[in-house]
Amino acid sequence: MLSRMPGPTPRTQVHRHPERGDYDRDTIDQILDEALICHVAFNDEKGAPRCLPTIHARVGDTIYLHGSKAARAWKALRAGAEVCLVATIVDGLVLARSAFNHSMNYRSVVVFGTAREVTDPEELHTAAAAITSHVAPGREHEARMPTDAEYKQTLLLALPLDEASAKVRTGAPKDDAEDMELPIWAGVLPLHTQPGEPEPDPQLSEGLHVPPSVTGYHRPGGH
Amino acid sequence: MLSRMPGPTPRTQVHRHPERGDYDRDTIDQILDEALICHVAFNDEKGAPRCLPTIHARVGDTIYLHGSKAARAWKALRAGAEVCLVATIVDGLVLARSAFNHSMNYRSVVVFGTAREVTDPEELHTAAAAITSHVAPGREHEARMPTDAEYKQTLLLALPLDEASAKVRTGAPKDDAEDMELPIWAGVLPLHTQPGEPEPDPQLSEGLHVPPSVTGYHRPGGH
Repeated sequence: MLSRMPGPTPRTQVHRHPERGDYDRDTIDQILDEALICHVAFNDEKGAPRCLPTIHARVGDTIYLHGSKAARAWKALRAGAEVCLVATIVDGLVLARSAFNHSMNYRSVVVFGTAREVTDPEELHTAAAAITSHVAPGREHEARMPTDAEYKQTLLLALPLDEASAKVRTGAPKDDAEDMELPIWAGVLPLHTQPGEPEPDPQLSEGLHVPPSVTGYHRPGGH
Repeated sequence: MLSRMPGPTPRTQVHRHPERGDYDRDTIDQILDEALICHVAFNDEKGAPRCLPTIHARVGDTIYLHGSKAARAWKALRAGAEVCLVATIVDGLVLARSAFNHSMNYRSVVVFGTAREVTDPEELHTAAAAITSHVAPGREHEARMPTDAEYKQTLLLALPLDEASAKVRTGAPKDDAEDMELPIWAGVLPLHTQPGEPEPDPQLSEGLHVPPSVTGYHRPGGH
């Protein structure tokens, strides 16, 4: 696996706040793995922009996406439309003294490319297991994995991870020098996504305990 | 203000899982207000899809977006490119007995339209206050609001909220009848975004207390 992207391309180069740009594959992988969902932008058959929130999973140099073969929205992607995939994690609110210098601490990744439909039975299973594991690590060992009939209804797409960049902001607000003495509190309010109490299915069979994927729920990367 | 969209258009109509579609303006507004960020998809000057994570704020029938006039990424939007804006809130993991029936509880809104650049001084102030308030309700009364020079550097865009729909999934997993007796735990793991401990700016003047926007931080809508 590459430890670094081949270098920024014209469209992955971070122009605005270049100090936030990161082209390191470890950074990119970590953000893709931790982000629960992503947003996939593409053009529909008429050339108009579309954007779908969806679950993804990374396996090495491939991002898997899944949808339904019956879903119109995925038609253009399946036909090879160009994709701009963005995964964003918000880490906190950056509250400056001035409204103008307010910001967010965040980590985002953008990936450009074209997806191919997965049809190989072994790769279908790899992708399904990766997506199940992405949602809740370990769940792929608990759930009943798909049957051939279910694979026939499922659309699994593979997007190569070869044109991507990360953008990361961390740390305190950056106010202008003339604002530093204003009597206004400034700082960061961290935000975390946390699991609540598991809600068992009302029709759950008796005697089944909450499994490890739920009791130990965490995002890969440990944030 | 409209209490309901004029009705779904061909591109806001929810085809996949139509039972999750919601065209009620109250539902749409509530999701837009609660979602901290959104993703904005559009085509760049070459017709290729782009997607930007950004902060938004709704005022009545208008969604305000802000960027920097210096940012290349916003150039096409400023020039009137067609926009597909998506705001997504993940409420929980839906863990079915079968991997195939895994899902998410979520609330999302999609808005189609074309943005105009805000230039009227009064509207600039309305938009800046709304965006500051969207990040942390009440912060617009604490922070120093923008000067004319700052407004000159800030790009504020207005997107009309007149072609939009929501998609909402709630509740327990839906497994196939033949899977119901499998010895596999099924249920929902709710996910919540929660604030951590405020981190004061290391250069904060002495004697400033953590303000109400931080101590009472909440997303509008109360989730």
